[in-house]
Amino acid sequence: MVDRIITDSAEPSPLLVVGSVAFDNVITPYGSQDGILGGAASYCSFAASYFTQPRMVGVIGNDFGEEYVERLRNRGIDLQGLQKDETGPTFFWKGKYHENFNRRDTLDIQLNVFEKFLPNLPESYMDSSFVLLGNIHPSLQMHVLDQLKENSFVLADTIDLWIETEKDALLELIKKVSLFVINDTEAEELTQENNIILAGQKLREFGPETVIIKKGEHGAILFHEDGSFAIPAYPVTELRDPTGAGDSFAGALIGRLASRNRTDFSAIKEAILYGTCVASLTVESFGCDRLESAGSSEIEKRVEDLRKLISVD
Amino acid sequence: MVDRIITDSAEPSPLLVVGSVAFDNVITPYGSQDGILGGAASYCSFAASYFTQPRMVGVIGNDFGEEYVERLRNRGIDLQGLQKDETGPTFFWKGKYHENFNRRDTLDIQLNVFEKFLPNLPESYMDSSFVLLGNIHPSLQMHVLDQLKENSFVLADTIDLWIETEKDALLELIKKVSLFVINDTEAEELTQENNIILAGQKLREFGPETVIIKKGEHGAILFHEDGSFAIPAYPVTELRDPTGAGDSFAGALIGRLASRNRTDFSAIKEAILYGTCVASLTVESFGCDRLESAGSSEIEKRVEDLRKLISVD
Repeated sequence: MVDRIITDSAEPSPLLVVGSVAFDNVITPYGSQDGILGGAASYCSFAASYFTQPRMVGVIGNDFGEEYVERLRNRGIDLQGLQKDETGPTFFWKGKYHENFNRRDTLDIQLNVFEKFLPNLPESYMDSSFVLLGNIHPSLQMHVLDQLKENSFVLADTIDLWIETEKDALLELIKKVSLFVINDTEAEELTQENNIILAGQKLREFGPETVIIKKGEHGAILFHEDGSFAIPAYPVTELRDPTGAGDSFAGALIGRLASRNRTDFSAIKEAILYGTCVASLTVESFGCDRLESAGSSEIEKRVEDLRKLISVD
Repeated sequence: MVDRIITDSAEPSPLLVVGSVAFDNVITPYGSQDGILGGAASYCSFAASYFTQPRMVGVIGNDFGEEYVERLRNRGIDLQGLQKDETGPTFFWKGKYHENFNRRDTLDIQLNVFEKFLPNLPESYMDSSFVLLGNIHPSLQMHVLDQLKENSFVLADTIDLWIETEKDALLELIKKVSLFVINDTEAEELTQENNIILAGQKLREFGPETVIIKKGEHGAILFHEDGSFAIPAYPVTELRDPTGAGDSFAGALIGRLASRNRTDFSAIKEAILYGTCVASLTVESFGCDRLESAGSSEIEKRVEDLRKLISVD
């Protein structure tokens, strides 16, 4: 029985998660670790698994041992869509965080089996009513949308690389998503606005009904037709490795929505609390370790703490 | 009749405000303006004047015309403690903000009459139960405390200059203040902690019951024995000149407390909403212009907006 946060609403909807699976070598001011299970699909799926069953689509290589598959399976993640490509190793990334974690350099990147990855959905995934598109190439994100039979609630994330190299494809994609999640510097780059409020408003004009701009340690802002919502980050004092924080935020957020079968303004605000708290767990250890082991009661406790932290009355 | 925000509580307490009065030349990406009425005491007093009567202590020089005095008087500010020194001009500062306003350079600074300034209180000010010590030299801040006859609620602000040159005097001073307000980089510098939560906790160990760390466009965090409170900045889209934002925040915050005669955790949280909103007005024009002219109903409206922006439910 997978440890999940129970809601009093209807049966949770399953959540389709598409993205990279990777091995990471991470260097931080607190030390370094090699061969970390990473990639957006891993973080998103682990995070979402506290709320509903993720259906994971990604590719792993010939170096992806059973012990890693087991970690995903232990969190109840549906791995039918996880492709194994025996022709090469798994996507590899090596990065270094600098003092205060406010900057990171990519030291090495090897696409490996990810280079030929095409996110083809198993037939059984095509009815997914909640979809998380991790920050892969916009044309791959679009390929996923093209296979869906439902009018799904789709969350998409992106990275600066696609803004710089695939801006038109990205703009086409975000027209079709329900909730677009992006960080502050990327939002300013994509909209050419140097004010985050104006950037958020402009992104909504590009198509998505809802936009969330992530500000890392400074929290996030939600832009929705019914209003805005600004929230600080959960107050982390043991920051160890920020890798995957954004993915965990997105995974928990849409996982929570799927578990409640709700996508209204109020539900999105509440889900942001969960995204914020789950992301705060992720950054307290290297890789997915803390995220995997935290447990639903720790998440609920943090959400209560966060509610108090932002409560005026 | 001065436009003020009325509370349903007892008679507002008057508020002693001590700090610099200056003429500023400010250059921003949106243009520049010379001879702006500035200085911490001006911003703090204008901001506080929407809540209670400020008793202003500072020094002006022989170039400080009656038209400037009139602006202060029009907001009901008690000027009995404003010293006029005919031997020279008023304190002068020239600064330039860079793209995105995230960095500013001081291009010129002339202390003038401020160099010999000693904040001696008129007899009638010595019973002030609320006191705002602007970011002047810690020994001058202490000189004010030494003259007070009351067990006052004292808010003190500082700047990086005193952390670097007068750290011991500053640490002595903050032992005696009720509420210490400091920005994020200064807090990290003073505590040698590179995590804002740890910095806030450590500052409380230095003496003050309450600490607020200001994060500019990212809001503020309150540290109090009854808990913490994190709030985003008011969403400003017309940023023109950030000068005086911190002073306006502090002035409105303690002005609100004085007007309600309350200093408990809940009252401080509510007062932070007012500080945040008044600061948002200040930055929408050069100098004090918008702050002076905004009116209490605009402040109340922004506080309502801000409550909505941070409300989960």
